[in-house]
Amino acid sequence: MKRLLITGGAGAIGRVMRKRLSGLADAIRLADIVTLTPEHDLEECIQCDLADAAAVNAMVADCDGILHLGGISVERPFDEILHANIIGMYNLYEAARAHGHPRILFASSNHTVGFYPQTQRLGADEPLRPDGLYGVSKGYGELLARMYFDKFGQETASVRIGSCTKEPVDYRMLSSWLSYEDFATLTERVFTVPVLGCPVIWGVSSNPASWWDNSNAAWLGWQPRDSAENWRETIEAEGIPSANDPLVTRQGGRFTELPIITNKPPV
Amino acid sequence: MKRLLITGGAGAIGRVMRKRLSGLADAIRLADIVTLTPEHDLEECIQCDLADAAAVNAMVADCDGILHLGGISVERPFDEILHANIIGMYNLYEAARAHGHPRILFASSNHTVGFYPQTQRLGADEPLRPDGLYGVSKGYGELLARMYFDKFGQETASVRIGSCTKEPVDYRMLSSWLSYEDFATLTERVFTVPVLGCPVIWGVSSNPASWWDNSNAAWLGWQPRDSAENWRETIEAEGIPSANDPLVTRQGGRFTELPIITNKPPV
Amino acid sequence: MKRLLITGGAGAIGRVMRKRLSGLADAIRLADIVTLTPEHDLEECIQCDLADAAAVNAMVADCDGILHLGGISVERPFDEILHANIIGMYNLYEAARAHGHPRILFASSNHTVGFYPQTQRLGADEPLRPDGLYGVSKGYGELLARMYFDKFGQETASVRIGSCTKEPVDYRMLSSWLSYEDFATLTERVFTVPVLGCPVIWGVSSNPASWWDNSNAAWLGWQPRDSAENWRETIEAEGIPSANDPLVTRQGGRFTELPIITNKPPV
Amino acid sequence: MKRLLITGGAGAIGRVMRKRLSGLADAIRLADIVTLTPEHDLEECIQCDLADAAAVNAMVADCDGILHLGGISVERPFDEILHANIIGMYNLYEAARAHGHPRILFASSNHTVGFYPQTQRLGADEPLRPDGLYGVSKGYGELLARMYFDKFGQETASVRIGSCTKEPVDYRMLSSWLSYEDFATLTERVFTVPVLGCPVIWGVSSNPASWWDNSNAAWLGWQPRDSAENWRETIEAEGIPSANDPLVTRQGGRFTELPIITNKPPV
Amino acid sequence: MKRLLITGGAGAIGRVMRKRLSGLADAIRLADIVTLTPEHDLEECIQCDLADAAAVNAMVADCDGILHLGGISVERPFDEILHANIIGMYNLYEAARAHGHPRILFASSNHTVGFYPQTQRLGADEPLRPDGLYGVSKGYGELLARMYFDKFGQETASVRIGSCTKEPVDYRMLSSWLSYEDFATLTERVFTVPVLGCPVIWGVSSNPASWWDNSNAAWLGWQPRDSAENWRETIEAEGIPSANDPLVTRQGGRFTELPIITNKPPV
Amino acid sequence: MKRLLITGGAGAIGRVMRKRLSGLADAIRLADIVTLTPEHDLEECIQCDLADAAAVNAMVADCDGILHLGGISVERPFDEILHANIIGMYNLYEAARAHGHPRILFASSNHTVGFYPQTQRLGADEPLRPDGLYGVSKGYGELLARMYFDKFGQETASVRIGSCTKEPVDYRMLSSWLSYEDFATLTERVFTVPVLGCPVIWGVSSNPASWWDNSNAAWLGWQPRDSAENWRETIEAEGIPSANDPLVTRQGGRFTELPIITNKPPV
Repeated sequence: MKRLLITGGAGAIGRVMRKRLSGLADAIRLADIVTLTPEHDLEECIQCDLADAAAVNAMVADCDGILHLGGISVERPFDEILHANIIGMYNLYEAARAHGHPRILFASSNHTVGFYPQTQRLGADEPLRPDGLYGVSKGYGELLARMYFDKFGQETASVRIGSCTKEPVDYRMLSSWLSYEDFATLTERVFTVPVLGCPVIWGVSSNPASWWDNSNAAWLGWQPRDSAENWRETIEAEGIPSANDPLVTRQGGRFTELPIITNKPPV
Repeated sequence: MKRLLITGGAGAIGRVMRKRLSGLADAIRLADIVTLTPEHDLEECIQCDLADAAAVNAMVADCDGILHLGGISVERPFDEILHANIIGMYNLYEAARAHGHPRILFASSNHTVGFYPQTQRLGADEPLRPDGLYGVSKGYGELLARMYFDKFGQETASVRIGSCTKEPVDYRMLSSWLSYEDFATLTERVFTVPVLGCPVIWGVSSNPASWWDNSNAAWLGWQPRDSAENWRETIEAEGIPSANDPLVTRQGGRFTELPIITNKPPV
Repeated sequence: MKRLLITGGAGAIGRVMRKRLSGLADAIRLADIVTLTPEHDLEECIQCDLADAAAVNAMVADCDGILHLGGISVERPFDEILHANIIGMYNLYEAARAHGHPRILFASSNHTVGFYPQTQRLGADEPLRPDGLYGVSKGYGELLARMYFDKFGQETASVRIGSCTKEPVDYRMLSSWLSYEDFATLTERVFTVPVLGCPVIWGVSSNPASWWDNSNAAWLGWQPRDSAENWRETIEAEGIPSANDPLVTRQGGRFTELPIITNKPPV
Repeated sequence: MKRLLITGGAGAIGRVMRKRLSGLADAIRLADIVTLTPEHDLEECIQCDLADAAAVNAMVADCDGILHLGGISVERPFDEILHANIIGMYNLYEAARAHGHPRILFASSNHTVGFYPQTQRLGADEPLRPDGLYGVSKGYGELLARMYFDKFGQETASVRIGSCTKEPVDYRMLSSWLSYEDFATLTERVFTVPVLGCPVIWGVSSNPASWWDNSNAAWLGWQPRDSAENWRETIEAEGIPSANDPLVTRQGGRFTELPIITNKPPV
Repeated sequence: MKRLLITGGAGAIGRVMRKRLSGLADAIRLADIVTLTPEHDLEECIQCDLADAAAVNAMVADCDGILHLGGISVERPFDEILHANIIGMYNLYEAARAHGHPRILFASSNHTVGFYPQTQRLGADEPLRPDGLYGVSKGYGELLARMYFDKFGQETASVRIGSCTKEPVDYRMLSSWLSYEDFATLTERVFTVPVLGCPVIWGVSSNPASWWDNSNAAWLGWQPRDSAENWRETIEAEGIPSANDPLVTRQGGRFTELPIITNKPPV
Repeated sequence: MKRLLITGGAGAIGRVMRKRLSGLADAIRLADIVTLTPEHDLEECIQCDLADAAAVNAMVADCDGILHLGGISVERPFDEILHANIIGMYNLYEAARAHGHPRILFASSNHTVGFYPQTQRLGADEPLRPDGLYGVSKGYGELLARMYFDKFGQETASVRIGSCTKEPVDYRMLSSWLSYEDFATLTERVFTVPVLGCPVIWGVSSNPASWWDNSNAAWLGWQPRDSAENWRETIEAEGIPSANDPLVTRQGGRFTELPIITNKPPV
């Protein structure tokens, strides 16, 4: 690629991918709602509010690949999710349409299916069961991506990220963990494969206890290498959650028990 | 029911249901963004913008059933869909949460799956393939409904309406037509059955040429009685569409070929 | 057939089938644990405890068809179910093995799947979810029948009877009702078809609100004619059960909430 | 249509369709390996050996629809099947390719799946289990049709005809019978529907005891009206076949027990 | 766990697990119908007939986990299976109900599905096809466990053990072998995972030639490490069974050809 | 085996297997349409045209296993495919029937499913979508094999070979490559396993990017060891095909775009 745009470049995953993916394109454009500073000559930094259509249009111009990590990534009041994830996603896809349909990796989330029990194995085609407004917004994003694919041929990989952290730190992550390295190799595959289409892919490392079945995306040739199992002893030593803790009952963990967060006093 | 709220009461379907369902509740509350006038003592009329949370909250108060026909029902610019269908849907479910979770029939749409070919039969669990921003907004509505069900027990029937008109008037409606009477009996079943859950139901009459399989909702006991086949001769006499007309290729018909409608000059 | 054995001949269904099926064989042998009296020359009556192997062997001799309605048909203490349904079933199949494998219609029950929600449609291959000791014993009976088929070629139709009564009398029966007439025509098909094998068949009339899908047994050519829907108005007029009543939540209805019945003081 | 070609016009089905379908096109061209005589002005008759590529090419010229009934329709020596069904089918599709891809209804056969037991219900997607060289040749025909569709867009309906006769005359036909009238209405739908694609359709009337599930072709809107069940009493009166008669064990009936027919002394 | 009960402690598997699992609980209670002697301070030994309800009740008291290996594990006369496996299983679950629902690993068996051919791969949801009275009794046990789960929340892992021996010793075990070590690690996972539910799990090592698919239980995180393939050369050197030997045709092997064993002269 | 026949012994795969499989039987009989010379005492060489029934009969005599690599293996004019693959296959199976049904490994091809997109994972039961006359002929071969199995018990493994070459040399082979060594071990398993039946098996190495799922044939115990992934860097360095190159869109690669090859001037 000539120029890879990474949105959400100031976030935890963005900061890692910025370094890890520097060889994937001739230039990396980092964007975030906060200000970023280039760390070397191949980086460009843009401050951009996803809800600002003109700014998003400028951000996307001249890019031939987009790693879309930007937006809200936790449960928040509807207004925040609306602006960043719903309006922002529309702005992004309109900008991509205006600029030649650069391929997109959309960071979707396990919270699109968070209400499924952890004792159920899921492929990528089961009906969504989002666990909050955040999960709903990510499901909306997958639908929008699919529509732009069917209507305009815009390619997107919707990657339902499990728990993308340095290492697994709680019992649920023994199943849901995605290592930075595995996410990086997945990203490389997504931007290298000649035909992508519009698949839904589980963003999860090679954890034996995973709930998610990626066999329908096997053709991509991605092989996650890390396993949360290496942390099992450490995590179990800190205590095993009780049987009614959503951390071990539902795939979305504690998100399933969060209320609708409002900024206003309740009606 | 004591009071059934019908949103979109001024629309084509709303005007029919207003009369047809008058026996379903002690009172019918009609709401629309345009002004309505009661036609008899059992009717109440409210002017309400779905994007206005406080107005929606007032609209929902004291109702124990909601037939949610309101919002945009065709392809329109994103801003219009955003306000009526995305923000409006959130406002409606928040109001329902504040007022004891009255059961909801959500008028979803076949445009959530419009890109499927007409030669493919669909159950209710296949991944969505919306055919425009409108279809995406209806898919979002289904996800929101499912989340409020899983999190709060809010019951909703998401009815993917085919073509709800007085009679079928084009070739595609030989498959997609839903008669007013069949929609009315479906509505009655939805509000009568003791346990509803959160099913997705195809809103389609008993057309032999239908693409949609409602067997997973058979437990509801709904039996559509009308058939578009009675109009086949008339419709075919007007000419059979050519083989590449989206009217006969895609389940969403001509919506699949509509552009993204914008109010602004293209970028 | 030369001689059809009807076990449980003194029970409610037995009394009906005795009359209704008199043309199906040259002779009808009625058996029950209570004493029965022949009503005409073609009937023979035998008193038989199913737990008594020798008595069962004598009962089966010279029959070329068995309608096995006998045994306990409600939730009861384990000892009763053990003797009639578990030991009795073994005795019956051993007797059938000794006497040339007369074809058997085994009256299984919807209580083999009673814990499934009423909002789920079932084929005949889903894993069992029995709702009590009675349901477990009927599931055991299906397994025993299948083993005798695989090992010895013994043909059995395991008919999971819904609610076989004169007419539907509660809300659940709008889905689960099996009319006497439909059961009789099913019995006729089972004993007439040249090849039966060992199918599981839902014993349910043509109720639109049924939860059960018999399409895998369509080859049998059985066409139920009655419909519980004709009683809907009457039944709904008596009041619709509340949403947490097992009568409307679980396919097994109130059996799902019965305790384990013991004759002894609890431990 | 301007001109419908009916191959095998001298055969039993061809003779019926010739009359029944005369309104479907401005002209009917009848072809057969034996000589035919036109019965009225709208008919043309051609003598044609399907194995003769040039003759087939001439036969197809100027037709915009082909009802391909021609070829061998019973188990015969390989050479005969090879010439009529294998080489002939290739010749037909090459001719269709040369003449603008007229839509084709290919008379395939239940003998493509003849080894399935009659107690198994089949959709159209199960792997084939042909019951002889004839069944293999029809399966080959379906594959050829599919390849010409994928490669050139040639539309074909592969209709797996059950038993197309005036009325059902044996026990197996209670399941497999296709009435002439139902085949005619199916043919009309196949040539009328704007988009056909390349579906496999079970050619069977509305027999309750059918083994075949046409729901994936429901979009076609074909509704068979006849039922073999009306002949059950008559047929059963002639005696029910024994349980090991292939007439009642295998879907292909007695074809499954035919040997490979050779013209030569066995090796 | 404080105290793990191992029933069948004197059997082949029990003797191995007794040593291997000593670290899994503060105390191990061993029970069997024969007398056992503690080997160290952490062991308790109880003589118990499973058909004796009071004895079973005492055996279960104060345990918070049960590895239920007890009962008959081969084909035997009905009376023996009845007492140990059918009455005994009921007694065990009633005792568990009386004592706070300790989690149970129920040693079910591949003989619940023994009549499936070895060329068919099975998930855990296929209908059972038991290969004898023993297999039927294990299927009954799975149903009983499921009922106690649905009704009372009693958690059970029904582990369908293949061939649990020191090493594979015949051709069939190349597919069905379960090493002691793999069974031990499975047991540890079953008693460690915070939420178990009521899954059916194939008890089989990581044999490439296995017929069984455990992917629906992958969430458990169990990873069998041993493989029967290491013994292939040795076993094949002793001769490969002929093609009609049940050892290589049916999953249940030679059990499928055993007669019903009776203590009495045949009828 | 006493004598293994390898047809197509002069072809690329045949030459490799001739050496690699020399230990699989006491004698290897090599056949081809061109002349071959034995390389050692255990080899016999036969010149044979598959379209010559008598020659094929002689070729098969005294063999107890057949590795059928012979025939046309690329897209060619119909006449060539007809003689070698259609008539030749019939001759081979008739010869096998006359000579005691030696087990057959039939080299089928990925070109039976070549029109499926590379983004779709296939099991072995999906409907065929051949990509040319060659693919149709291989599908015909699978049907013929299945018929001889159902009718006569003739066992065949239909192995859909991907790209069997020394090493992968283009982008598509990263998915489709089958190493010689893996094909050899598959062949060994096919001829060693006591019961084979008539499975369809994907002939593909252990490539992470494969489109094909062999889990239904896992019971065979075959474990491919090689992986095309080791060549990814080399192949990608030569340039990644463009997104509309059939080499990366369709499973059959460039075969999907080949015309029907004729020896004659087009009509």
